[in-house]
Amino acid sequence: MTHHHTLQRMLRPQSIALVGATERSVWSNSAFENLQRFKYPGALHLVNRSGGTIYGRQALTSLLELRAPIDVALLMVPEAAINGTLRDLQAVGAAGAVILSSGFAEAGSVGRTRQRELLDIAQTTGIRLLGPNCLGFVNFVDSIPLWTIAARRQPDGAAIAIVSQSGATAGQISTFAGQQRIGLTYMVSTGNEADTEIAEVIDYLVDESRTRVIALFVESIRDPNRFAAVARRVQDAGKAIVALKIGASPVTAVAAQAHTGALVGDDRVFSAVCRQLGIVRVDSVEDLVTTADMIAKLGPLSRDGIGLVAMSGGMCEIAADQAASCDAVLPGLSSATETALREVIPAFATPSNPLDITGGAMLEPELLGRALRAMRRDEALGIVACLFDAPLGAEAVTWAEKVIAQIASGFAGTGARGILLSHTVAGVSKEGAAVMTEYGVPYSGSGLHHGLKAVGKLVEWSRMCRTKRVPDAASIDVATPPPQLAGEREALDFLARHGVPAIPAVLAHSEQEAVAAARGFGGPAVLKISSAQIPHKSDVAGVALDLVGDEAVCNAYHHMLGQVATLRPGAVIDGVIVSPMRHGRVELFVGTMRDPQWGPVIAIGLGGVWVEALRDTSLRVLPVVADDVFEMLAELRGSKLLDGFRGSAPVDRTVLAAVVVRIGNCALTLGPELQSLEINPLSVSGTTVEALDALVTWNQSDLKAWR
Amino acid sequence: MTHHHTLQRMLRPQSIALVGATERSVWSNSAFENLQRFKYPGALHLVNRSGGTIYGRQALTSLLELRAPIDVALLMVPEAAINGTLRDLQAVGAAGAVILSSGFAEAGSVGRTRQRELLDIAQTTGIRLLGPNCLGFVNFVDSIPLWTIAARRQPDGAAIAIVSQSGATAGQISTFAGQQRIGLTYMVSTGNEADTEIAEVIDYLVDESRTRVIALFVESIRDPNRFAAVARRVQDAGKAIVALKIGASPVTAVAAQAHTGALVGDDRVFSAVCRQLGIVRVDSVEDLVTTADMIAKLGPLSRDGIGLVAMSGGMCEIAADQAASCDAVLPGLSSATETALREVIPAFATPSNPLDITGGAMLEPELLGRALRAMRRDEALGIVACLFDAPLGAEAVTWAEKVIAQIASGFAGTGARGILLSHTVAGVSKEGAAVMTEYGVPYSGSGLHHGLKAVGKLVEWSRMCRTKRVPDAASIDVATPPPQLAGEREALDFLARHGVPAIPAVLAHSEQEAVAAARGFGGPAVLKISSAQIPHKSDVAGVALDLVGDEAVCNAYHHMLGQVATLRPGAVIDGVIVSPMRHGRVELFVGTMRDPQWGPVIAIGLGGVWVEALRDTSLRVLPVVADDVFEMLAELRGSKLLDGFRGSAPVDRTVLAAVVVRIGNCALTLGPELQSLEINPLSVSGTTVEALDALVTWNQSDLKAWR
Repeated sequence: MTHHHTLQRMLRPQSIALVGATERSVWSNSAFENLQRFKYPGALHLVNRSGGTIYGRQALTSLLELRAPIDVALLMVPEAAINGTLRDLQAVGAAGAVILSSGFAEAGSVGRTRQRELLDIAQTTGIRLLGPNCLGFVNFVDSIPLWTIAARRQPDGAAIAIVSQSGATAGQISTFAGQQRIGLTYMVSTGNEADTEIAEVIDYLVDESRTRVIALFVESIRDPNRFAAVARRVQDAGKAIVALKIGASPVTAVAAQAHTGALVGDDRVFSAVCRQLGIVRVDSVEDLVTTADMIAKLGPLSRDGIGLVAMSGGMCEIAADQAASCDAVLPGLSSATETALREVIPAFATPSNPLDITGGAMLEPELLGRALRAMRRDEALGIVACLFDAPLGAEAVTWAEKVIAQIASGFAGTGARGILLSHTVAGVSKEGAAVMTEYGVPYSGSGLHHGLKAVGKLVEWSRMCRTKRVPDAASIDVATPPPQLAGEREALDFLARHGVPAIPAVLAHSEQEAVAAARGFGGPAVLKISSAQIPHKSDVAGVALDLVGDEAVCNAYHHMLGQVATLRPGAVIDGVIVSPMRHGRVELFVGTMRDPQWGPVIAIGLGGVWVEALRDTSLRVLPVVADDVFEMLAELRGSKLLDGFRGSAPVDRTVLAAVVVRIGNCALTLGPELQSLEINPLSVSGTTVEALDALVTWNQSDLKAWR
Repeated sequence: MTHHHTLQRMLRPQSIALVGATERSVWSNSAFENLQRFKYPGALHLVNRSGGTIYGRQALTSLLELRAPIDVALLMVPEAAINGTLRDLQAVGAAGAVILSSGFAEAGSVGRTRQRELLDIAQTTGIRLLGPNCLGFVNFVDSIPLWTIAARRQPDGAAIAIVSQSGATAGQISTFAGQQRIGLTYMVSTGNEADTEIAEVIDYLVDESRTRVIALFVESIRDPNRFAAVARRVQDAGKAIVALKIGASPVTAVAAQAHTGALVGDDRVFSAVCRQLGIVRVDSVEDLVTTADMIAKLGPLSRDGIGLVAMSGGMCEIAADQAASCDAVLPGLSSATETALREVIPAFATPSNPLDITGGAMLEPELLGRALRAMRRDEALGIVACLFDAPLGAEAVTWAEKVIAQIASGFAGTGARGILLSHTVAGVSKEGAAVMTEYGVPYSGSGLHHGLKAVGKLVEWSRMCRTKRVPDAASIDVATPPPQLAGEREALDFLARHGVPAIPAVLAHSEQEAVAAARGFGGPAVLKISSAQIPHKSDVAGVALDLVGDEAVCNAYHHMLGQVATLRPGAVIDGVIVSPMRHGRVELFVGTMRDPQWGPVIAIGLGGVWVEALRDTSLRVLPVVADDVFEMLAELRGSKLLDGFRGSAPVDRTVLAAVVVRIGNCALTLGPELQSLEINPLSVSGTTVEALDALVTWNQSDLKAWR
């Protein structure tokens, strides 16, 4: 690494002090034992107020006794001694402090105050902090463990860095990776993140040449802009982030607050952010490790299709079912592939995907090699997974080698990539890993269930790499001053001026004007009360739909004014809006809102009960481009309604997407005081897209809301 | 086992012949080695047409050389030699044949014919068959492996039997169980099931005293009635079935046909069957084994709530998120439990569920014991899971023992059951299993992800045990002759006579009659064309809704007759049905249909797009009782619409369920020629339930369909 990163001295220290070292603490013991076991090459100092001999070494009673500067200190002292220690560190020219101690932001308001003081001192002294309430870090690349529970050395070829807001969880992630013989480059626990956040650690790792994938455990993204910027840098570098982020349940939000003082934010917005930043999201430790490993081993695929080959029909069927229930697509084979397969598989086997090569391949492993070669040439496939268990011990290697040699031959040459998966999740033995390395076969011991999920995620990540979109928020100017939209009609007119077609409307002040307007539109009409004091018109009988004929319009006009006068006697009535009634269209909800973390967000849903009862919406952070909108529409459970339902014309998604993009841009144009801009419904049929109603709310919406 | 089961001589043979034994076959070698390794206590004969010495023993050239009867033969001979061998077996008084050979129903129409011949010979000779196209079975209880790939001996305390239509998959299941040190009592692969089906094997296992859980891998249930009967017997015996059944994807259906010649049936109906028969359904090998193990270890729970305790806040959060996304419910703690916890956990920990006991428990394991005891007394909890990894080798036992002793103490005494889970899925070492046995701690190495899923399934199974319902189909008589329902109105009248309220209606033959009828009902009216030739009325403008006033009714009457005359000039028109229009109600779809496997099935869905575009329906096999209907309603994604939406009255689910039960009983009353009975919509509001339309179709529906 030529570039000198802000975290370099902390994460690649040439000298370390353990402050609060004592043989009576398991944390201290683990930290010291780790450094010994890793043969840490730099200088190591032990500091304990009482001095004496610790681990057979003379301990200093204070950092101030150091004769040479140190890079980083691991602080295992009580919370009350932290601030003084930071000042000592400044005095001896240290760069960073890793703080194990708890009792800060995770511990209520007193703790939050303490943490603010801590940060103040850090900023004053120029000492960078990791933690507090963290377990430290391990730089496996340079054999530097500053880690307070047991750390293991890593196998060769490590390519995955763990970055975790929970130290114990980082430990569990590394344990599972170790059992799978998956190598780590770094493991960093950021704890309460008083100073160093995951975004900065990721920023450091982007330029760490051995790290290809960053496996995150996240409770909260503290600085979304910084995180987004570094995630884009990861993507540009051809590296990947796989994230296990908690926060799907309300219980979790409370738990995270207690655990590291984190606010978890809106989980669905984070999922949208992942889609937009090329981050793969998973929901278990096993999937985090398996997916990171799959990406690290295989890199981006050029096609989406997944092929699968097994010696067991049952496992093929389980795979097909699982693929149908997650995002893994196992396409049918081309007829060319089927023909090629028919020539190489047993007569009683069927050329298909998944391919059951049958138990015959146990007797004649060449079948497997030939079938894999034929399958990998299929033009729809980006990867072919094969099920076979690596040998668990030396005694099984000889037999397995024959099969593995055939698999290696089946994976060689041009075509889809190949990956070997165990049948069920199992630790990978030293012998198993060695034989796979020898034959150059990428292997995952994650089993069909986790392995196929991970292959599906690899496909998703590869697609995000190919379709990387960087919308340019800066290109959208906030209008100065933002237009003072007053009421539904002004909102619709504003949208119309920005390319969002709105329903025609006339503001009538008498029944004659209403009738004339309805006649002018032709066909059935709609009346709506217009009053700044009545944002929710249907609550006061302020909407009348599908009025046919002059008499119906007249009656509705009188009835509406009567009801409104009774129910909202004080409201100032501007008049009655007359519009044509639209039938036989799909109605969408398109709304923007302001996420406290991520800023302006857009939601699309199918109208009515779909949004209100099912919450079937898709979200993205603004601005969006048309491709984002296509994805959003595809994510809706009721998506197929857009393709024509009960005789309605299929929606032109290109036209619709262009309008949605403009709605999003309108919201940005309206500036930071905009709380929400809702088009409900946006009426769509074929190439016709028309906003029927709009509602704008501003911050302090009590004062400024209207409909 | 005192009872002499039909499969007893086959599955507990006192003498065995390996027919087609040869050192050149891996299958033969495996079978012989297994018998040696298990020290099979009975008589073993080798048969090979060429005779000679095999495995150091003199082989017979024919079964007819046997001097004593044998119980079972394992046939590893070519398909063409099978029939003759069965006749030989009859001659020597054998009870059964286990047929490894393939080339039967899985191999197209020729194979299906062969399989029929095979069954004929079996029935003629009285020889029971397992297979063909199977891998055999292992009776671990009596050390009898008749299994053609490697089989392992089982640990003590085995309680799970594997029954699988795929032999290789049974092997994978047993491999994973072995790595988890979970013991098996039996493993039976049924292959093509020419004779012995899984139902009969399960029937045998119900009375096998050590077997507490049956883990199934199923492609197809060949005899649903027999399966249902044995599943009820399993439930009555307090045992459990956990099923991994494939068939969710269309690809799987094709694959299963190729694999063992099975037709997979409607996957959603099978899920309904599981709910009705108390069967737990899972979707991966890992979940199959983990869930079976959890049930075998813990038996039924008396309460639904799950508690969770971990030394890592991150794992607690992952658990809470996972619980929210599956059926595992982690309820909040009672204030009594919170108070009790506050006294025993560190000041900086928060009493909640999941409970983060913090890393402090590493230093002071007593914290864990006290917290578990306090949590297990919470009245909402049926089980408390604790996360801690069993030691992987002897060197780690001493340290872990201190913690495990505390966990054992925390799990002792009255209160919710306790289960210890590893953090991530990992094989269980001999030392790990031994220390858990020593302290009496139930342990699963399945990890949080699979373990919590399995705990959720254990809760589901326990609830099914507590709420066992056995609807009595025999109590519903088929009407003789079944009523000849002619048209919508007769169908509605039939339903009304059976307690299903139907909308009032008048058949009008003139506009005067129509107007009079509409006036008679008061409020807006609906007109519908009545003609046996027009089952789908809306296709020909044969429905007019929401008609207000005489003029509207008149106009609609004329317009409808005009359209129908134009579009269906040949149709015989009975008249026009006049009914009142219903507003502000929830519309349900309730329909019965005939599943080719399971017979009459009832579906409930929300009307309109819900059923048509979302396929949001819940299914059960008929007859159903009210509790089934409550579950069905709760399963609907749009379920909350029933609780009042946009001001509509909440639906009285008791009244609704009673009506749905009657609709199902009506369908049964209409006898086996009924294809479907659809009420669409069933209009519901508060305690009002009313069928607005009904459609009956019969077998050969082209001739008998009407609306």
